[in-house]
Amino acid sequence: MINDLNEILSTNARGMKKSEIRELLKLTQDPEVISFAGGLPSPESFPVQELYDILCDIMKNEAQVALQYGATEGDTLLRTLLVERYKKMGLNISLKNVIITTASQQALDLIGKIFIDRGDKIIVGLPSYLGALGAFNSYGADMVGIPLDEHGMSVTKLEEVLKDLQSENKKPKFIYIIPDFQNPSGITMPKKRRLEIIELAKKYDVLIIEDSPYRELRFEGEPVETMYHLDNSEQVVMLGTFSKIFAPGFRIGWVVGNEHILDKIVVAKQSTDLCTPPYTQRIAARYIEQGLLDSNIKKIIDLYREKRDAMLEAFEQYMPEGVTWTKPEGGLFLFLTVPEHIDTGELFLDAIKEKVAFVTGSSFYCNGKGKNTMRINFSYSAKDMNIEGVKRLAKVIKSYL
Amino acid sequence: MINDLNEILSTNARGMKKSEIRELLKLTQDPEVISFAGGLPSPESFPVQELYDILCDIMKNEAQVALQYGATEGDTLLRTLLVERYKKMGLNISLKNVIITTASQQALDLIGKIFIDRGDKIIVGLPSYLGALGAFNSYGADMVGIPLDEHGMSVTKLEEVLKDLQSENKKPKFIYIIPDFQNPSGITMPKKRRLEIIELAKKYDVLIIEDSPYRELRFEGEPVETMYHLDNSEQVVMLGTFSKIFAPGFRIGWVVGNEHILDKIVVAKQSTDLCTPPYTQRIAARYIEQGLLDSNIKKIIDLYREKRDAMLEAFEQYMPEGVTWTKPEGGLFLFLTVPEHIDTGELFLDAIKEKVAFVTGSSFYCNGKGKNTMRINFSYSAKDMNIEGVKRLAKVIKSYL
Repeated sequence: MINDLNEILSTNARGMKKSEIRELLKLTQDPEVISFAGGLPSPESFPVQELYDILCDIMKNEAQVALQYGATEGDTLLRTLLVERYKKMGLNISLKNVIITTASQQALDLIGKIFIDRGDKIIVGLPSYLGALGAFNSYGADMVGIPLDEHGMSVTKLEEVLKDLQSENKKPKFIYIIPDFQNPSGITMPKKRRLEIIELAKKYDVLIIEDSPYRELRFEGEPVETMYHLDNSEQVVMLGTFSKIFAPGFRIGWVVGNEHILDKIVVAKQSTDLCTPPYTQRIAARYIEQGLLDSNIKKIIDLYREKRDAMLEAFEQYMPEGVTWTKPEGGLFLFLTVPEHIDTGELFLDAIKEKVAFVTGSSFYCNGKGKNTMRINFSYSAKDMNIEGVKRLAKVIKSYL
Repeated sequence: MINDLNEILSTNARGMKKSEIRELLKLTQDPEVISFAGGLPSPESFPVQELYDILCDIMKNEAQVALQYGATEGDTLLRTLLVERYKKMGLNISLKNVIITTASQQALDLIGKIFIDRGDKIIVGLPSYLGALGAFNSYGADMVGIPLDEHGMSVTKLEEVLKDLQSENKKPKFIYIIPDFQNPSGITMPKKRRLEIIELAKKYDVLIIEDSPYRELRFEGEPVETMYHLDNSEQVVMLGTFSKIFAPGFRIGWVVGNEHILDKIVVAKQSTDLCTPPYTQRIAARYIEQGLLDSNIKKIIDLYREKRDAMLEAFEQYMPEGVTWTKPEGGLFLFLTVPEHIDTGELFLDAIKEKVAFVTGSSFYCNGKGKNTMRINFSYSAKDMNIEGVKRLAKVIKSYL
């Protein structure tokens, strides 16, 4: 072993931190703990029987494609089906605008890799998805946080920051946004807000990264067009994934955007994993082709709506005064705020004793704030467990009041 | 679209080049072209029938593990089986010394990510695996090439370079070596050479990255212990993969090494893809558990030995004087050298006209040399096609003499 490992690590590696979520998930392996901590889809949502037939068919009829190396940009069949699917949603894109990644997390990593030099500014929500913060941090990004209001990222604050950065001649590399059922807040951006942010992005010539893993899991209300759709000038790069609507175990996501940007992502991807597994890509392709994805999404929506409802009711019933929470119209998460004097990091340890887990909100704040918040997942546990877990959590919170 | 994409790219992204191999592979899609260009395993080597049963069983019995997110360090079952497999080979490692990656290419990328700051020195063979050069280049590595002799990396040259760098106070981050059936040269390092290099690495306190994708595909002669095995002090980090002995379409590789280094790789991996597909990991695990991997390797060895033999015979028969080639005892590749005045980059275009393809050797030289060399793959095409391809290639080479 070399004498001093630290001495030979890259500057970025020295700044990397273990994901708190993934470490916490280990603590919550105890089967008695009701975990609101992960971002896991419910196992009930996995279409096991339909998959069985598809897997077998692929191994019978197209094993030689599925088992071989594939193109870095992804399986052409899967990309074509995604293009068709977007066209049905009114989005006019073609094959050159879609590439496949090893789930969204890889897209976030590759975006970090092609855009971020150590010290570069990027703009994220306060709070924002932990895994994205981790990916951008791993390239040494200097993240500027913009607070969210009930409609998502604040336009006033965003313009202030963009103006300030412009005056310092520090152009941010991109604005990272999750407009639908944001992780961790559960907030969805209305159309007006999306348009205002796109306008700002154009005015200040800044790219928008629209991360959209939960969009299709809408339980109620009307969908708002994606920012990619509303923009129409390719100021936006959009990320999608099958992890929440099909199965995370296949690790398949995609990126929609301007072909020159995708080209750069593909070159970066070549050296990171050559290609996403052709086998799991082909499974996803056949699954869409047989029209199974859309019916599976309907099934998941019904399942998660019920779980969310049960949880929101339990909150109303059990939470003490002074505790507030968001009421998401879809997705997997809601965000809970406790009185300011409570640190959810401390509270977490007592919660574990009471056999309930969550993720501390501060993990999602690039500035370390949000000490009195927590992210609650409602998709994973069974409905009854959601209710029981809220009871336990309420008890712990009360002990801090 | 933003005004100037180039302006917002990272410095490293500006320096990334498309992999010549992957671009060439596109040119060689013409079914009439006999391609010696790729590094593809033969489709005949895929154990389709055995896989069929395993896939179906997993979907019946353990879909909920296979379809869910998994641990970043990899499936514990698969890691345990790898540990047992190495123990049978005489290597005393434990679970903490093995993690799973999205094939070897991801391991190369993560090693780049945790060790390389822009401008850092690393040491590679002249020639060396293109995909590794690409991964290290994507972090801005300043690669120092060490010529190979018939036993692999030259010890004298290596020590010269290590001494020079030491005198300039520029410690290289690691030495990258493929000791078995090297890509692209096909050369295998004898035990003595491995020990000498390990000794140098210890003397100069430099890590060795031992990349070992072909090791188990030995057609003849006795296997030499891995450098990891010979070292015993964790100066070496070793990479393995199922891509050449099972199926590249699953994208599964692994890293064996000191736990503190693996820990850093795991943290970096968290933000690059969260986890390697649990489904394909479980397939590999069940495949090993049922004892199928070892019999499959035997099958592949017989298949590739025959293809190599056919190719070597064809070289003897058809190649003009002045052309030389390596005679690998295993693996997928051999390396061909033509007279110095011939540029294989030019020759490539004429070869394509004659419906035969290869990869120009210079792609494997970090210093751009090797213009009169080429890498020849013998594993992918059928035996007869190997012979026919050599005939065509010989014809093109003759036209340059």
